[in-house]
Amino acid sequence: MDDADLRSWGPALVSTDPDVMASYSRDQSRFTEHALPEAVLAPASTEEVAEVLREAARRGLAVVTRGAGTGLSGAANAQRGSIVLSTHRLDSIVSIDPDEQIAVVQPGVVTGHLRAAVAEHGLFYPPDPGSVDSCTIGGNVATNAGGMCCVKYGVTRDFVRGLEVVLADGSIMRTGRRTAKGVAGYDLTSLLVGSEGTLGVITEITVRLVPRPAPPTTVLATFSTLAAAGAAVQQLTRAGVRLSLLEIMDRTTLSAIESMSPLGFDTGTAAILLAQSDDPDSASIAALAADVCRASGAEDAVVSDDGREADLLLQARRLALPALERLGDWLLDDVCVPRTRIVDLITSVEDIAAREDLVIGVFGHAGDGNMHPTIIYDEGRPDSRAAALRAFDQITARALELGGTITGEHGVGTLKRAWLGTELDASAARAHRLVKQAFDPDGILNPGIAIPEPWSPIA
Amino acid sequence: MDDADLRSWGPALVSTDPDVMASYSRDQSRFTEHALPEAVLAPASTEEVAEVLREAARRGLAVVTRGAGTGLSGAANAQRGSIVLSTHRLDSIVSIDPDEQIAVVQPGVVTGHLRAAVAEHGLFYPPDPGSVDSCTIGGNVATNAGGMCCVKYGVTRDFVRGLEVVLADGSIMRTGRRTAKGVAGYDLTSLLVGSEGTLGVITEITVRLVPRPAPPTTVLATFSTLAAAGAAVQQLTRAGVRLSLLEIMDRTTLSAIESMSPLGFDTGTAAILLAQSDDPDSASIAALAADVCRASGAEDAVVSDDGREADLLLQARRLALPALERLGDWLLDDVCVPRTRIVDLITSVEDIAAREDLVIGVFGHAGDGNMHPTIIYDEGRPDSRAAALRAFDQITARALELGGTITGEHGVGTLKRAWLGTELDASAARAHRLVKQAFDPDGILNPGIAIPEPWSPIA
Repeated sequence: MDDADLRSWGPALVSTDPDVMASYSRDQSRFTEHALPEAVLAPASTEEVAEVLREAARRGLAVVTRGAGTGLSGAANAQRGSIVLSTHRLDSIVSIDPDEQIAVVQPGVVTGHLRAAVAEHGLFYPPDPGSVDSCTIGGNVATNAGGMCCVKYGVTRDFVRGLEVVLADGSIMRTGRRTAKGVAGYDLTSLLVGSEGTLGVITEITVRLVPRPAPPTTVLATFSTLAAAGAAVQQLTRAGVRLSLLEIMDRTTLSAIESMSPLGFDTGTAAILLAQSDDPDSASIAALAADVCRASGAEDAVVSDDGREADLLLQARRLALPALERLGDWLLDDVCVPRTRIVDLITSVEDIAAREDLVIGVFGHAGDGNMHPTIIYDEGRPDSRAAALRAFDQITARALELGGTITGEHGVGTLKRAWLGTELDASAARAHRLVKQAFDPDGILNPGIAIPEPWSPIA
Repeated sequence: MDDADLRSWGPALVSTDPDVMASYSRDQSRFTEHALPEAVLAPASTEEVAEVLREAARRGLAVVTRGAGTGLSGAANAQRGSIVLSTHRLDSIVSIDPDEQIAVVQPGVVTGHLRAAVAEHGLFYPPDPGSVDSCTIGGNVATNAGGMCCVKYGVTRDFVRGLEVVLADGSIMRTGRRTAKGVAGYDLTSLLVGSEGTLGVITEITVRLVPRPAPPTTVLATFSTLAAAGAAVQQLTRAGVRLSLLEIMDRTTLSAIESMSPLGFDTGTAAILLAQSDDPDSASIAALAADVCRASGAEDAVVSDDGREADLLLQARRLALPALERLGDWLLDDVCVPRTRIVDLITSVEDIAAREDLVIGVFGHAGDGNMHPTIIYDEGRPDSRAAALRAFDQITARALELGGTITGEHGVGTLKRAWLGTELDASAARAHRLVKQAFDPDGILNPGIAIPEPWSPIA
């Protein structure tokens, strides 16, 4: 772009520096297509976002909106002939209202910063994706991010009351409300949450907060068979044990963690469950959870109310992906199955790993059935790369067979785009295309993302 | 319609009996337009619904979908040249899965029946609109119904995982999922919840359930000033007191209840708050709630863990509308304001009542700020009728001024249609029209409802 081109974007910061553009050209996913954008734009106000969108529409350039780039499905990957609109300068916490238990924030606020800021008011913003200390709330809203809190608290959508959005034509729309309830019109807020940058650019978010919970009590249960761990998850649900966290890690994941940061997990352990309660009576809930685990066949179930021990255990859980990454190149999956089918899924993953001669670790949010099979392969070997892709597709297909979904929390992006049409029926696929067309008739917003293939604007 | 006409609807039950049609021509709202339909159709399967919609589209007849007719905004009122599609024969509980904590139900199931059926599995379906024993789950989903549970549990939308929907062209679409999490594509489920019959006919609903809570402990707090009651609501929130119910009734409502069913409320009482906790530690939470009420200026705050006493108090709360109805003709409002502005709203309602020389009782869900000002007037006197309408508009306007919404849980229907365009900005209003057009291009589904005026299909 020449100087006149650059000036036409309005007052937003523009960069066409190749190094900058390269670093803004993709998120943290693997196997997802990306290209150098035409420019990186960093507007600092809603009005600047609107100017950028109007100019992009005028030039027929696609707009890929980007938060912190921590996404895992390629939804923020630059496309050929696109600009990247980065929200990092829209980074104000506009207000925190302890009486209404809401906060108003711009999309570029780091999720961890929001959590810290509301904690000073005795409040809690639950959603906690793995990247909570670096991801931004705008990206969380765009992907409807989850995390470890969901078994008790739900996902990002459950905490979004209202939005300010710049639409494809540069017009500014407010959705939702500040009040606890409201049914005036369609729920455009929920439609926009998780729409992966395809319906508008979110410029302000009103989130619901909850009172800060009690310090948690933690349970670590170890199992010598997968089946026993699966039975424990089922029995914990059946018994109505009110947990705020219920995570699982399989043998492969534990062994990777052990070789990175020894915590003393037995090599005979097939899986562990990590559970927490943050209710006021967390001690008795945790004791009950431990009992249920033992009755389901746990080798051991240890309860701890020591904050440092709990942090250590959660830290081990957060090491799952980094530890697996040390074993080679990785491809991270994100499927969600009915809670009762977790063991079926993990067993299938073991079979697939053996068949394809790959290491695949499984960890995830057992309480929700949301699993992250992580395929380790060798990028330098085409056969290994091909095997990784085959394994990925087989796992995704198996999740659907088990009554699950292709993506529990990472989103469709470009990684699962080819699968979306399999999950959706023909009417739902058509409805997606029509909604996309209604919001973005020229198809400039993240074209092709989150829409079942083959994608094209409906004429 | 002649016999050939009647047969063309397929196997669905058809009635053109004027008495039947009259009884299906409106819901329980007042001041809402309605007309005799051309016919009442009662399909007994999804496929029959699809046939009805295809035939309606062929004939250019509008389709007004109706649950039990307990709505309060006129969204199920028959229109000129419409048929009424009643869901009462789609009344099966398809399945209840205790392990996944979900139930699959048809729309004609009475909400109270679903609650009773899942209770046998130790599970709880929280949404509890006032008409819970007669309304149907399909109507609840279509209006995103609330109730007294929302302060803890949320509204109907928070419990809907997935839907089967027949679209305007007769095609059948599934949205959502059975799993706890899932982000594959747009949240069409949330878009359809609360869409008041304008985007499709819901034929099956997958709802999320929760473990059955402990028996509640109840607090009754009486206040000699409205300001003290308002302060108590604010302090209960600030203190993070985890209530499962927080209701308010004003002096006018109490006095109406007292004259219908004497419970011994003091005539000096300006308002009462009724609170419950159903947490395992409900006794200590209720004690804390009573303390907070006293510290905020309550005359009295009584804690009870006696189930019969609690039932009696809730019964009194449920009498609010029937008791006010005895005073004359009534027009029920449903606004939601920030919790901290409840007193401002009630005070304004008192001013409006004085100015218009009307009795207006206020009761509602204090914990959510969702208030039901109930205007008593004389239908036989045009000046009284006009005053009621003026009061209604003034209350709605005041709710918006206070940062609230025109409808907290009853929906827009025909009653608040003229107000929707005031709450939505121009971009949001346009987005509503475009979404409507995407789903129902010929405008046969409940035309005009839930869409900002002036409504017409976009050419």
